[in-house]
Amino acid sequence: MEFIGSHILSVSQFDRTDVDTVFAVADKMLPYAARESITRVLEGAILGNMFFEPSTRTRVSFGCAWNLLGGEVRETSEVKASALVKGESLYDTARVLSGYSDIIVMRHQLAGSVEEFAAASRVPVINGGDGANEHPSQALLDLYTIKKEMIAQRKTVDGLRIALVGDLKYGRAVHSLCRLLSLYQDIHFSLISPPELRLPENYIVDIKRQGHQVQESADLHSGIAHADILYVTRTQEERFPSKEEAERYRGLFRLNQTIYTEYCEPNTVIMHPLPRDSRGDAMELDDDLNENPNLAIFRQTDNGLVIRMALFALILDVTSQIEQISRPVKWYIGGRCHLS
Amino acid sequence: MEFIGSHILSVSQFDRTDVDTVFAVADKMLPYAARESITRVLEGAILGNMFFEPSTRTRVSFGCAWNLLGGEVRETSEVKASALVKGESLYDTARVLSGYSDIIVMRHQLAGSVEEFAAASRVPVINGGDGANEHPSQALLDLYTIKKEMIAQRKTVDGLRIALVGDLKYGRAVHSLCRLLSLYQDIHFSLISPPELRLPENYIVDIKRQGHQVQESADLHSGIAHADILYVTRTQEERFPSKEEAERYRGLFRLNQTIYTEYCEPNTVIMHPLPRDSRGDAMELDDDLNENPNLAIFRQTDNGLVIRMALFALILDVTSQIEQISRPVKWYIGGRCHLS
Amino acid sequence: MEFIGSHILSVSQFDRTDVDTVFAVADKMLPYAARESITRVLEGAILGNMFFEPSTRTRVSFGCAWNLLGGEVRETSEVKASALVKGESLYDTARVLSGYSDIIVMRHQLAGSVEEFAAASRVPVINGGDGANEHPSQALLDLYTIKKEMIAQRKTVDGLRIALVGDLKYGRAVHSLCRLLSLYQDIHFSLISPPELRLPENYIVDIKRQGHQVQESADLHSGIAHADILYVTRTQEERFPSKEEAERYRGLFRLNQTIYTEYCEPNTVIMHPLPRDSRGDAMELDDDLNENPNLAIFRQTDNGLVIRMALFALILDVTSQIEQISRPVKWYIGGRCHLS
Repeated sequence: MEFIGSHILSVSQFDRTDVDTVFAVADKMLPYAARESITRVLEGAILGNMFFEPSTRTRVSFGCAWNLLGGEVRETSEVKASALVKGESLYDTARVLSGYSDIIVMRHQLAGSVEEFAAASRVPVINGGDGANEHPSQALLDLYTIKKEMIAQRKTVDGLRIALVGDLKYGRAVHSLCRLLSLYQDIHFSLISPPELRLPENYIVDIKRQGHQVQESADLHSGIAHADILYVTRTQEERFPSKEEAERYRGLFRLNQTIYTEYCEPNTVIMHPLPRDSRGDAMELDDDLNENPNLAIFRQTDNGLVIRMALFALILDVTSQIEQISRPVKWYIGGRCHLS
Repeated sequence: MEFIGSHILSVSQFDRTDVDTVFAVADKMLPYAARESITRVLEGAILGNMFFEPSTRTRVSFGCAWNLLGGEVRETSEVKASALVKGESLYDTARVLSGYSDIIVMRHQLAGSVEEFAAASRVPVINGGDGANEHPSQALLDLYTIKKEMIAQRKTVDGLRIALVGDLKYGRAVHSLCRLLSLYQDIHFSLISPPELRLPENYIVDIKRQGHQVQESADLHSGIAHADILYVTRTQEERFPSKEEAERYRGLFRLNQTIYTEYCEPNTVIMHPLPRDSRGDAMELDDDLNENPNLAIFRQTDNGLVIRMALFALILDVTSQIEQISRPVKWYIGGRCHLS
Repeated sequence: MEFIGSHILSVSQFDRTDVDTVFAVADKMLPYAARESITRVLEGAILGNMFFEPSTRTRVSFGCAWNLLGGEVRETSEVKASALVKGESLYDTARVLSGYSDIIVMRHQLAGSVEEFAAASRVPVINGGDGANEHPSQALLDLYTIKKEMIAQRKTVDGLRIALVGDLKYGRAVHSLCRLLSLYQDIHFSLISPPELRLPENYIVDIKRQGHQVQESADLHSGIAHADILYVTRTQEERFPSKEEAERYRGLFRLNQTIYTEYCEPNTVIMHPLPRDSRGDAMELDDDLNENPNLAIFRQTDNGLVIRMALFALILDVTSQIEQISRPVKWYIGGRCHLS
């Protein structure tokens, strides 16, 4: 794909070369995210960080990635403060807001809304999550994390054995990650969910058509054996038809250190798109895993920064300028960053 | 008026020379808003963007205008997160917040509240909208748009024929625009509204006293003939005594391409203070006008940026420094901007 | 204490030398807060301004303090937009958010929450208020104000006579201030409250043990006589078991100019942690005191800026660099600032 000036709406825009391009630029961003240097390459540029659905983590992550490149952020974080509630169309919102910024990140609860918004926008738009549909930067940071973790174990993404656990029906992170992983060779997917929350059939068909292996199960213990990566998900309660139906699945699969030790291979990496539900009756990833060095969930969020920086830099065509406009950090940074 | 250090509370502060001053500075801001150059003239300065009533568009527009001059924005976007709900007076809020910033933009639902706030503020305050009362930057951007559109048609604001359509009673944008237009010569106002939503009598009296013509009507088709500008408004439902009363007027006047073609002169410019209500039963400006080159509604919002930049620059006395602290933009800007 | 890289969670971290260190750096910040110069020492640094409880004043004050040092702010201002409502633990929130910023200010309604958050954070955390527990920067700015006001009257903090008025049970500002004042010599505390809202016994015991004098009373008039400082507080209605119970105390103590003139010594300084409740039936500090030159409440909030700047600069170890990266302000600043 051509990155310059492009919208990023779906992982299906990316082929394997595109993914490699993003990851190569992300690697270049590491010293800036790790606070060894600062760059001011986007000084004077404005991000419109438009979150029309509650979010702290993703909104702040995009904003920080932009700040780390030197730019300014203007943002909104709720639908009710918006003209949308006065009947404004996404078309109008996009025409107006795209006059105010150099690039827009948008989240909205309705599937397809970001694409509609992007069609009317005068600046590039990155999908920050549209309902149960897509969240491409999450899938990219997940894949980037998988690649980094595998490299550290002298393995490759090709040949990966990944176990996906939990609500595979409503979890957009899982859907997008399956699409991206399918770009690689010889992936083995172990899909672990209750029957009602299976990965939708079209994803399974696509995965198989691209030559990968799929094994489905409703049993956690057998499903997670032999995995390089365990990708555990929260029940997406807010996407269920009813709260009652959602609660039936709360706490169904719970990974803790005991189960990990008994059923997983020694260096199986544990991932999660976050937030994990740490309420006692949910706890899909137990707190007792927090000191497990293979728990990669916070390396994931750290990686989110460099992936988002890379997307910004590629779309706005500044990758070659970053090192020219860089200088050392002169304040205390301590042991802040997991990145390396 | 003296701009340096001044509050901007009402359009009645402006005479025609003042308007010309703002517009001349706005013209100078065009290359910065159009991303040909950046300026950092307000680097280190802080805008207090205090919106105590829901708003995305106007809040973001002021924030971006400030960022485009190099400054930082601190903001609030809701009343319930504020000390105001704990019984704090506007006096106290103003004394405190004005210690934190170099200038404040304030929106509040109560008419007169911004003036009360400004009286206690230690820094200049711009009224970002106080209930049904005033929203001076909106009126300035509307007039600036009218001027630009007329220039493009080799016409002038003097002698303008403008049709104002819809809820003329509660629409503060209409009220303020009438005040500003009255500073010019020989304006013909065609006021189109249901009898209950007429422009308040005092505005009509003022317009006539200043030598302009007023014609009132409840009929859209006859009212819009011969207009240079059609200024269409949304029913300000939130200002009505009851929701039921507001809904009686929804969808009363609906301009679409067919009506435009049949009843308007060929180059009649279509304006709207936005948001337009695009719900099926409202739709005061139909979506089928979106490709009409005379639809100026997004040129209005783009013009809002340069008008707000101009106000900031004039109040803080930096107009002469802007070009000295300017440099080229080095990131992708694409076809972002309607400004020219 | 060692400031570099440290969390600031409680006033009990500070001894008198530490307080003097903060105040000395705060003094150096005055020209920047007063807009004589700007410094860009934290250009490229990011503050995570995480307010999980409604606040405008304190949130904006921390953000501005950071901006005045040249840094960028990413923030959140409500709990409901947060992953916390999806069951995320404070541990997870801290691990994630601390990957996005160089320092975090956090406010949360639960006592102890900020400490729990800080334990998991990879960057320094400043407590911006955790329920009824602590709000150390408020106590520091209060004490700094007392010191400045006493210096102006050629007095010292040692030997101070302070009257604390109102809800002394739930007011965390009062609790923390008592702790800090106890570091000085020979303080006389006059505690004025209804019996049910007395200062908790453990504070009184601590104060006395450190050699200070305590006098309790439920009578405003006698209690405020002979005070150098009157520190008046709002009833912390949101911390009461029930709204009914809170309302019983509304308006119980009301200081106005008449009472001040009759019962106070001529130059008694009036302070309040703000917001003051200016509703007619509360009005613990009457508006008729607004022109009283001894009303120091807005000098307090102004002082908050330099105290917060000092904390940031000390924690991030940039105090020695500030003057090197400084330049004059070139925009209109008028008579903005009370600081001197």
